[in-house]
Formats: sequence, structure tokens, C-alpha cells
Amino acid sequence: MNKDNKLIYEGKAKKIFASKDPKEVIVEFKNDATAFNAAKKSSFKGKGELNCFISETIFKYLINHRIPTHFKNSNSKSSFIAQKVDIIPLEVVVRNTAYGSICKQTNIKPGTVFNDPLIEFYYKDDNLNDPLLTLDRIMKMNIIVIEELVFIKELTTKINYILTEFFSNIQIKLVDFKLEYGRNHNGEIVLADEFSPDNCRLWDLKAQNGKIKSLDKDLFRHDLGDLVEAYSEISNRIKNFISST
Amino acid sequence: MNKDNKLIYEGKAKKIFASKDPKEVIVEFKNDATAFNAAKKSSFKGKGELNCFISETIFKYLINHRIPTHFKNSNSKSSFIAQKVDIIPLEVVVRNTAYGSICKQTNIKPGTVFNDPLIEFYYKDDNLNDPLLTLDRIMKMNIIVIEELVFIKELTTKINYILTEFFSNIQIKLVDFKLEYGRNHNGEIVLADEFSPDNCRLWDLKAQNGKIKSLDKDLFRHDLGDLVEAYSEISNRIKNFISST
Repeated sequence: MNKDNKLIYEGKAKKIFASKDPKEVIVEFKNDATAFNAAKKSSFKGKGELNCFISETIFKYLINHRIPTHFKNSNSKSSFIAQKVDIIPLEVVVRNTAYGSICKQTNIKPGTVFNDPLIEFYYKDDNLNDPLLTLDRIMKMNIIVIEELVFIKELTTKINYILTEFFSNIQIKLVDFKLEYGRNHNGEIVLADEFSPDNCRLWDLKAQNGKIKSLDKDLFRHDLGDLVEAYSEISNRIKNFISST
Repeated sequence: MNKDNKLIYEGKAKKIFASKDPKEVIVEFKNDATAFNAAKKSSFKGKGELNCFISETIFKYLINHRIPTHFKNSNSKSSFIAQKVDIIPLEVVVRNTAYGSICKQTNIKPGTVFNDPLIEFYYKDDNLNDPLLTLDRIMKMNIIVIEELVFIKELTTKINYILTEFFSNIQIKLVDFKLEYGRNHNGEIVLADEFSPDNCRLWDLKAQNGKIKSLDKDLFRHDLGDLVEAYSEISNRIKNFISST
């Protein structure tokens, strides 16, 4: 980033810089990794570039499948140009298979496959620890109107369909993932933020004996293995798949 | 309780004993008070009898308004006879005014009045700390069918209507409350558990200068005043109201 690019926002894994065009921003991926609402922190050389590549490739793939996203253009190895959006403070989580927090908050056993995937909403607020929201609570919070919420749910369902197939092509099971949406300068809702192994559970279908082999941030959360090695593996499989299609 | 009455279950504030009739149980109220999932504990002489009287009176009042409940007959000052039910593991919370946990999990300000009251479901599991549930989660948990859930929601709406008016008659604002339902030997869903100031927020409308004056377990939770004095006040107002109607 050159000195003309003012830092607008710094999150746990990304920085957002101003661009010359006021309708655009530059999204830069950091090497930092955090877990448990930043109670656990570390940094991994190469992670920023890997997440930038994976995210960028998935945004392009979704745009080709007529999903509106904030992605505009490539920029550097660790950054891309995106539409400037106002982020809607909802974390939209899709669960195809039960794992993690949902199993600690219900009687649902880890590994349970949802034929009808769950789409859940959490309040994006680190101070409150991103609590789960019900539809009634969302409506009382005055952060979104019902038509927008329905639109987001439909778009998320499509994205899940597209990406489940995408990852299946590269022998990866898309267990769950988190999305964020924003409103652009026209007030249109577009997929924003990122799509990287930091925000999903990806299980390697090449794993032996039906064991769970994580290729995502669970490796860092629970000290299960080399994060950069796993993210590189995903990146390589994506490269091979994209070049073969 | 005599020695023939076998203890079936002991909770934080009640004991359930077997009765001679296998379709019945004896519900006995303890003097114990707990808060924050039993992290804070104490005992208050007289609380058991007060909660028994309040609960019994409210169950009778609801039955007169054609709400099915587990209550059958009076028994002693601190116990009543009820239908034996299988408790559905859902805590059904009605919120007429925002206060407590919902304000820590959303952007909703304490004191916000809901013209359309919130009916929320929590998973009744102390080990998991009674987590909030979404409708989708409840459906995936296989603990209840959708028709039963709709029935419970309708019944809860009626109960809220009846009790808001009831408490308004005795100059008390029914801010929020928790209900539990059970299935009796015929498989019918009936209101179960108790209705006492342990499980609701009751604000004294006689309080001066629009200040909040709690007459409920918040007194114990936050060391705000004399629990037994407040519960006695509620009990006396209820007695006066019932005898005047």
C-alpha cells in the first residue's frame, strides 16, 4: 500500500484502505490468525497471500455464477480491490454438517449431516462475543428489513449450493462457513468480507479411514497441525481445478 | 412429605415426590434460591411457602381462563398435587419489555417495550447453561414436533395476555417470565413447573419517580433488597385481588 492509501479499518485478519475512487477500497489480508474472539493469537508467514488468493478465486467463481459480490479487481499478492460497502452487522453461518459451537449449545451430535442446511445469524459485535440471533431478535434490532434478510438467505442458499459442489470437485467437504454482506453505494446488497479457510470448516475427503482431517483454522484453534501447509494444499487444489476447467 | 412419598426429582428450587396415584406427583417448593446457573446460592426462610401460594393461585387463575396446566389440588403450605408430566426440555421465555440477557446479546436497550412480545426458546440443560435456540435448531434437535411448538407458542401468547392483565390489576408490570411445558399421561401438552417471582421480572408500578423497583429474583441476583419482603408483597396483593373478585 502506498502512503496515499489511508487505512479505513483494521480487523483481526484484514486491513481496509481507501482507494482513489471513493466507491472502492483495497482489502489487504494480514498474516495474523486469531481464535476464540482473539483470546488466542498468532501470525503465520504466507497466510495473508494464501487467503487473498483463495478468497479472490472464490469471489470470481461466484461472480461467474451470477452472485453479486464486492470483489472488483486483483491488486497485489495479498490485496484486492473491492466495492466500498457498509457491512451489515450480521455473521451469516451455513452449516451442512454439525460441528463446533452448535454441538455445545444443543443435543445435536458432531458429524450430523443436515440434508436441509442450517443458515444462522450472529450479531457481529466482538464486545458481545458475536451472539447467536433469532429471527425475532433481528427484526427488533432495526439493522435490516425483512426483505433484505430474505434476499440474504436466498443468496446464501445459492452460494452454499455452488461452493459445496466447488469444494467437492477438489475432494474437500464444505462443513460450514461464515459470510458477511454489505450495502454498496447503490444500496444493493452484495457478498462482502472474504471467503477463506479462516472462516469455514473444510475437511479433506482424501483423509484415510474416514477420519476428520481439517484444512482450516481448526488446526490453529486446537493445535492440530500446520496451518500454512493446509491452506497451501487448498490453494494448490483450487489452482489445479481452475486451470483444468 | 411422609416416607411413602419417594423423591423422584430434585431441582434447584423444587422437589418432586411420587404420589399414591401414578398419574400424580407432589410438587414441593424449597427455600433455596440460586442465580447465574447456581453459581450464586442462598436460602430464604418462607420463600418456599410464598412461591407455592403464588404459583398455585396463578395456576388456578389460568385454569379458570381455560389454560391447561399440570396443577390438580392444594396439598400443604409449601406443596401442591400436580399431574405427572414429562417435561419438554425447552424454557419458554416471554419478553414484554427488554431487560437482562437480551440486552447483553443484542443492541436492544434495557426498558424497550415490545408491542409485539418476544417469545423465545432456550434449551433446558444446566450443563450447557440453557443456551438460546433458534426455531431451526429446535427442529433439528428432535425434541418436539412443529405442531406442538405452534401449540406452545399460541398457549404462551394467551398466558401472557391473561397474566399481564392480572399483574396490572395489582399494580405490577410483568416485564418477562419463563414457562415450562410437559406432556401428561394422555400425551397432552400442559403448562407445568411453576409460576413464581423466581422466574419472572415483576416491577412495582407503585414505585416513585418512574424508577425500577424489582419484586423478583433480581433482588437476589444483584443484591438489591429483601427477597422475602418483596415476595410477601406480591403474595399480599394477589390475596387482596383474589378476595375482591
